[in-house]
Amino acid sequence: MSHSSLSHDQLLDRLAETSVRVGLNLQKGQQLIITAPLDAVPLVRRITTHAYKAGASLVTTFYNDDEALLARFAHAPEESFDTAATWMADGIAKAFREGAARMAITGGNPTLLKGQNPDHVSRVSRAASRANRPAMEIITQFATNWNIIACATPAWAQQIFPDMPEKEAMDALWKGIFSASRADTENPVQAWADHNRVLHNRSTLLNKLRFDSLHFKGPGTDIDIGLADGHLWAGGAEKAGNGVVCNPNIPTEEVFTTPHCSHINGTVSSTKPLFHQGSLIDGITVRFENGRIVDAHADQGEDVLNRILESDHGARSIGEVALVPHSSPISQSGILYRNTLFDENASCHIALGQAYTKCMTDPEGLSEEELIARGANHSIIHIDWMIGSDKIDVDGIKNGERTPVLRQGEWVLD
Amino acid sequence: MSHSSLSHDQLLDRLAETSVRVGLNLQKGQQLIITAPLDAVPLVRRITTHAYKAGASLVTTFYNDDEALLARFAHAPEESFDTAATWMADGIAKAFREGAARMAITGGNPTLLKGQNPDHVSRVSRAASRANRPAMEIITQFATNWNIIACATPAWAQQIFPDMPEKEAMDALWKGIFSASRADTENPVQAWADHNRVLHNRSTLLNKLRFDSLHFKGPGTDIDIGLADGHLWAGGAEKAGNGVVCNPNIPTEEVFTTPHCSHINGTVSSTKPLFHQGSLIDGITVRFENGRIVDAHADQGEDVLNRILESDHGARSIGEVALVPHSSPISQSGILYRNTLFDENASCHIALGQAYTKCMTDPEGLSEEELIARGANHSIIHIDWMIGSDKIDVDGIKNGERTPVLRQGEWVLD
Ligand SMILES: [Zn+2]
Ligand SMILES: [Zn+2]
Ligand SMILES: [Zn+2]
Ligand SMILES: [Zn+2]
Repeated sequence: MSHSSLSHDQLLDRLAETSVRVGLNLQKGQQLIITAPLDAVPLVRRITTHAYKAGASLVTTFYNDDEALLARFAHAPEESFDTAATWMADGIAKAFREGAARMAITGGNPTLLKGQNPDHVSRVSRAASRANRPAMEIITQFATNWNIIACATPAWAQQIFPDMPEKEAMDALWKGIFSASRADTENPVQAWADHNRVLHNRSTLLNKLRFDSLHFKGPGTDIDIGLADGHLWAGGAEKAGNGVVCNPNIPTEEVFTTPHCSHINGTVSSTKPLFHQGSLIDGITVRFENGRIVDAHADQGEDVLNRILESDHGARSIGEVALVPHSSPISQSGILYRNTLFDENASCHIALGQAYTKCMTDPEGLSEEELIARGANHSIIHIDWMIGSDKIDVDGIKNGERTPVLRQGEWVLD
Repeated sequence: MSHSSLSHDQLLDRLAETSVRVGLNLQKGQQLIITAPLDAVPLVRRITTHAYKAGASLVTTFYNDDEALLARFAHAPEESFDTAATWMADGIAKAFREGAARMAITGGNPTLLKGQNPDHVSRVSRAASRANRPAMEIITQFATNWNIIACATPAWAQQIFPDMPEKEAMDALWKGIFSASRADTENPVQAWADHNRVLHNRSTLLNKLRFDSLHFKGPGTDIDIGLADGHLWAGGAEKAGNGVVCNPNIPTEEVFTTPHCSHINGTVSSTKPLFHQGSLIDGITVRFENGRIVDAHADQGEDVLNRILESDHGARSIGEVALVPHSSPISQSGILYRNTLFDENASCHIALGQAYTKCMTDPEGLSEEELIARGANHSIIHIDWMIGSDKIDVDGIKNGERTPVLRQGEWVLD
């Protein structure tokens, strides 16, 4: 139901409205904190307008400038790479605790720091993570309503469409973003209400059926993925700790849960390339025994894959299994976005590393060991990679009995 | 010594270098916090590069967006106008206390909020002042090194040169900024060292001579301005509380001190229009008796002038008298910038309202009453207006004896 008759400005405005009304469900009197690349100024202005119309008491935007970051890597003294704006991160955490909502606009250059001193890159990232921990804990605990949304930028567009002139590449990327975000539908707020209902129906049904495991079968893939004891399926709009129902990710197409990190057996192959910190990993095939990867191969980037698998003990198991029909709009676009927000919503995927405690029943008060005993994997990494396609069948297995969930990539369970 | 052969980018780079090396004298390991309009991105990037080259540990820029502020006035709910980002202002104050330097880039639209609900405008300004007080106290106490510098923006340029096309107006404004900031000289750092020496020599000499009063005489002006007991002249580079010698204002052309708020008698006329919060006040003539304005007239904007004079008790006296030769580069440009940073450095001026304690000897521990008894005026306002021209003579008077200071607007004291 795409309205190609809409102008770019109209589509941008619908995307902004979608992010404020659906993504955040911003409440009257809430402050809003936006982080955005400088290229996102026109989108930020429209989000700001919709936020005030929704009753925001104050909108504060922090712009990131890729050029300023490159100037730091080019000219700053050694000590700079261990420095972060803790004073600012603490201020933002305080705002979240006092009730502010958070909007993150993604779209920077995915390979900006390629070619920089890897020691400097990892120290900057560590210092920033440490400074941002209090604020990010509020986000990962989902204590306040938040939303992440994408904005096309020339650097990103050029990497997706390297053979197009800039204008054409930007148009193509915007088309993909508007479509995946349902901003090009007649009534995006209604379209998201309908879509959320579909995702909720799927997760509700899966939570009722309580499969012991999922069996994925297709070219290069024949794997039984056990589900954690007391796993919960999630997907679509969710209620944050402050009581606001919102859609943290726009777009989102997945229903997802926690696999059992010691009950996974078989072989699985990637169906799309994985971009990790500027590196390409393609043609992945891994074999699991009792939940752990015992054999890993990649046609391209095998060294990077092996380095990932050695991050820590939990990196050789998975913390998420997600179901996405092949007919999802992102998958249909055929675009590889090199951005997890989009690519993980194009296909069924699994994630190496950390599980989501929100995908477990009654996680409160459980120690890490107790969560692991129930199957929830623990790791410092969480890296999604795509294993779905139109050639994949998925069965749910309960007490040895098989129920079809996906056939040739399409949802068949109801 | 203008180098018109330099490209715009070269001049911009020299302005950036001047702000970092002269304006801030940024020290190795200091963080730097920049506030800037979005139009200043190219200047900010160059300042960021020079800051890292000077050894900055981290540069953080907060961009103000005039459009986002207008969206707030257009759409925000009532409560928004009493809201400020206290959590952010507190974070910035913490950074200053921990040693960060501060750079403010001015250049936004001088009449942005003209036509907005005045109640909303004043509430937003009050809420922001309240939130920013801890940070601004560090700046007004000069506890850390800071600098304010200007960037041309289309909205500002258009108001100065309303009859020019945008490109031409921007070029003309940049030319004025580069020249006033000495960025167009062969070696701006050396030019500022020379200029600071001139200003220091003037204030040192005036501090030695310790005049009782200054007598200004010219068309419409014949006034005796008594100087405060224990007044101090200042001008040019100064040492901040953290020990760093810096030039807070770029440009600066003035030497200035504290008048005695009960020893001012005579009549003084403005020589250039005054822009106050988007309103024009022109052709001002006021008469002082024993330090207080007893009669005020303006050809244009007399109502605004009268409202200013009624701000509080101290608004009818002055807190600053400053000497600027008529040959100052800003005056020579003939441009009326509608921005105090520039216009107050074009001409001798006085300021209605609050005095600077740094322009008094041993102000520590003195109560407000004791400072007022020595002549230092107290008010919530500090509004500079121009009283100098090439037709003004200034004498210093000590024990009834006259010493020429300015003749026909030019410095003659040595
Ligand atoms: Zn996922
Ligand atoms: Zn994931
Ligand atoms: Zn002054
Ligand atoms: Zn002043």
